[in-house]
Amino acid sequence: MSKQSIGIGLMGLGVVAGQVTRVLTDKAGDLEEKVGCPLVLRKVKVLPQDLSRPQAQQMPSQLFTTDDEEFFQEPGIDIVVEAIGGESPALEYLKRAIAGGKHVVTSNKEVIAKHGIELLTLARQHGVGLQYEASVGGGIPLIAPFKHDLLANDISGIFAIINGTTNYILTRMDREGMDFSSALKQAQELGYAEANPENDVEGIDAHYKLAIMASLAFQSQVRPEDIYHEGISRLTSRDFGYARELGFTIKLLAIAKKSNDSIEARVHPVLLSRDSFLAKVDGVYNAVQVEGDLVGKVLFMGEGAGALPTSSAVVADVVSSARKIVLGIGSVSTRKLDSGKRIKPMSEIETRYYLRLNAADRPGVLAKISRVFGDLAISISQAIQQEVDPRARTAEIVLMTYEAPEKAMQQALAEIDKLDVVEEINNFIRVENI
Amino acid sequence: MSKQSIGIGLMGLGVVAGQVTRVLTDKAGDLEEKVGCPLVLRKVKVLPQDLSRPQAQQMPSQLFTTDDEEFFQEPGIDIVVEAIGGESPALEYLKRAIAGGKHVVTSNKEVIAKHGIELLTLARQHGVGLQYEASVGGGIPLIAPFKHDLLANDISGIFAIINGTTNYILTRMDREGMDFSSALKQAQELGYAEANPENDVEGIDAHYKLAIMASLAFQSQVRPEDIYHEGISRLTSRDFGYARELGFTIKLLAIAKKSNDSIEARVHPVLLSRDSFLAKVDGVYNAVQVEGDLVGKVLFMGEGAGALPTSSAVVADVVSSARKIVLGIGSVSTRKLDSGKRIKPMSEIETRYYLRLNAADRPGVLAKISRVFGDLAISISQAIQQEVDPRARTAEIVLMTYEAPEKAMQQALAEIDKLDVVEEINNFIRVENI
Repeated sequence: MSKQSIGIGLMGLGVVAGQVTRVLTDKAGDLEEKVGCPLVLRKVKVLPQDLSRPQAQQMPSQLFTTDDEEFFQEPGIDIVVEAIGGESPALEYLKRAIAGGKHVVTSNKEVIAKHGIELLTLARQHGVGLQYEASVGGGIPLIAPFKHDLLANDISGIFAIINGTTNYILTRMDREGMDFSSALKQAQELGYAEANPENDVEGIDAHYKLAIMASLAFQSQVRPEDIYHEGISRLTSRDFGYARELGFTIKLLAIAKKSNDSIEARVHPVLLSRDSFLAKVDGVYNAVQVEGDLVGKVLFMGEGAGALPTSSAVVADVVSSARKIVLGIGSVSTRKLDSGKRIKPMSEIETRYYLRLNAADRPGVLAKISRVFGDLAISISQAIQQEVDPRARTAEIVLMTYEAPEKAMQQALAEIDKLDVVEEINNFIRVENI
Repeated sequence: MSKQSIGIGLMGLGVVAGQVTRVLTDKAGDLEEKVGCPLVLRKVKVLPQDLSRPQAQQMPSQLFTTDDEEFFQEPGIDIVVEAIGGESPALEYLKRAIAGGKHVVTSNKEVIAKHGIELLTLARQHGVGLQYEASVGGGIPLIAPFKHDLLANDISGIFAIINGTTNYILTRMDREGMDFSSALKQAQELGYAEANPENDVEGIDAHYKLAIMASLAFQSQVRPEDIYHEGISRLTSRDFGYARELGFTIKLLAIAKKSNDSIEARVHPVLLSRDSFLAKVDGVYNAVQVEGDLVGKVLFMGEGAGALPTSSAVVADVVSSARKIVLGIGSVSTRKLDSGKRIKPMSEIETRYYLRLNAADRPGVLAKISRVFGDLAISISQAIQQEVDPRARTAEIVLMTYEAPEKAMQQALAEIDKLDVVEEINNFIRVENI
């Protein structure tokens, strides 16, 4: 209880780390009051090229080290903040910090998604805390609710718009009828998308975040490789047009559901009713809807990325760790980490589907397609047929199905693709009823 | 650390208390795992009439006592859960429990709004915790974010739809053109409004909840009596019609803002742009938008009332208190409770205004009204004039102003009311730009 100060060791000096140092400096008095003693930045582990960053110029040079040994042997560090990102060397650094008895705070979604349970287990063994609120959704509280506020609930579902880049692109496509590549270009110009956008637009970022939330909410290990993921690059303005006509919009949704014996987790574009709350979450905002047996539906929304919001979560975790140190308590969780529930393969999910295809514009075409569905016990709820090319006599057909097993639907797609009257299956989007 | 079990004493046996006992029983195994030892309900303080409730019939009769002394002298109680509601005798019970060294969990908004800082101070003196997540917004985490997740932020604003009854009524009025009394009647039939609806429709419930959130967010005592509050009973379908025409909807908003030296806090109907997120929160849902310097805008939404959601928050607080007992830590907060900021009187606020009045339908009327505004340096941004009664030659005039001081606006209203061409000021609604 008589700790004079809490020492922080920071790994990395990117935009998040830079902002964290600013908050620790600018709000030192306020944070000291909240912790009960000062938080002091003792060492910053950087790469040689980080030293030329503007942020580095403003800090005392003796804070920096490029040497792992020097960083880990610094005796005054109580809490290690890892803000490097990526799997390696961050994973090794986190393990080393934990094994050295440091409390650890990280904003690294990839490491937590892939190695969270391993790291949490290690942290328990060493009696230290591992906090990762900043790894999902910037400053929106998305980890703490599962650990604390909603812990009396049996969580049955998570429905999340958890990637701001894709939500920005989809919002532009929906509102302005833009095609994917123009919307992506604009997102890149505004700094919302990276030069290589694959991580965002292919759902990779979102599937890491879903792995973290689902593992915590269901107390069962959901690995990134367990999560089916599909991006938004196949979507066209035609799909948005039909979606609108049918009362939907299109969002990239990260979905996790728990049933008695299994878990399903997937990231893909969905048709979402315009009346649903998540359909109204536009631009770079993130939003996560959680369903629990007691709480019903709760929704958390905010800016899901950026240095300022992320620093809000990192510093909150630092303060929480520091309070534990002041109180002399280590890792306190007795929560089950892995209840070992079965992860459903994608073929077992059931949902509604939207299908858009080009076919010959002649009598009996719709009947042929319908027969394929009928033979597989898939019911069609709506059909739209439009002439697209009078000379070539082709038509565009959009079908919405009732709920059907993914396995049957995939078989139907394969068979429809083989029909001589079908020119091309243009798109196939799942429909989520929330 | 070697605690065998944590004893719970429950005060009250209404719907919330009943649901809490069900959760403690049905989820005993899961809660034990989360706490580290079993939670055991040791005593329930009831009124004689509670004993005939169905819930009481299902519980062992020796759990019940109608006697205060017996309850407070029960040695096995570690945590007292107060679910009686109202100011008295709940306040005395809470004080007695705290003074007796018990951790306390309450869902009582009135007591916390009026006596929160007094009770928190008392709890610190006695080294116990006082938790009240359930006092605001049912199961939506609205207390924990200010205490933990957002603590690195300087909170500048809270904008809250925090009363489900009024939001249900306003949603019906907006969507279906209903008048207030019909919408209230429907809300009563559906059990969303009480037979005596005053507490909800006059903004009393909302102003308690705002007092709790603002005090915590700004670390400064905001008393209910500091908060201007005005209800929704004056709103008519005509106001909703004009609001829609102008691109707005009408919501009952609880607003708290902090500037460098002062705080403003108020509950009243507002015109809200249809594009704003809170405008999209319909029916009995609650939503709170918080603005912080790091996190930007974050929004929390869910069902703000009801036994199930409220029990979610109560049990989370019980588990949190129980963990502290297991770890042997008492009241740990060193957070400043009252920074003593000045509360702005309502006359000092500045906002935009909507005004609807009936006036004589003859030349020069709008000029006379405009002159009053002009003399007080209030600028009009929009005006709509409609003939309402050709025979009586009266017109309805709707004016929207730019931002103006409330004091000037009240003076303008008084002067306009005295103009011979003005028959009646029908309504006056503030406009919030979020």
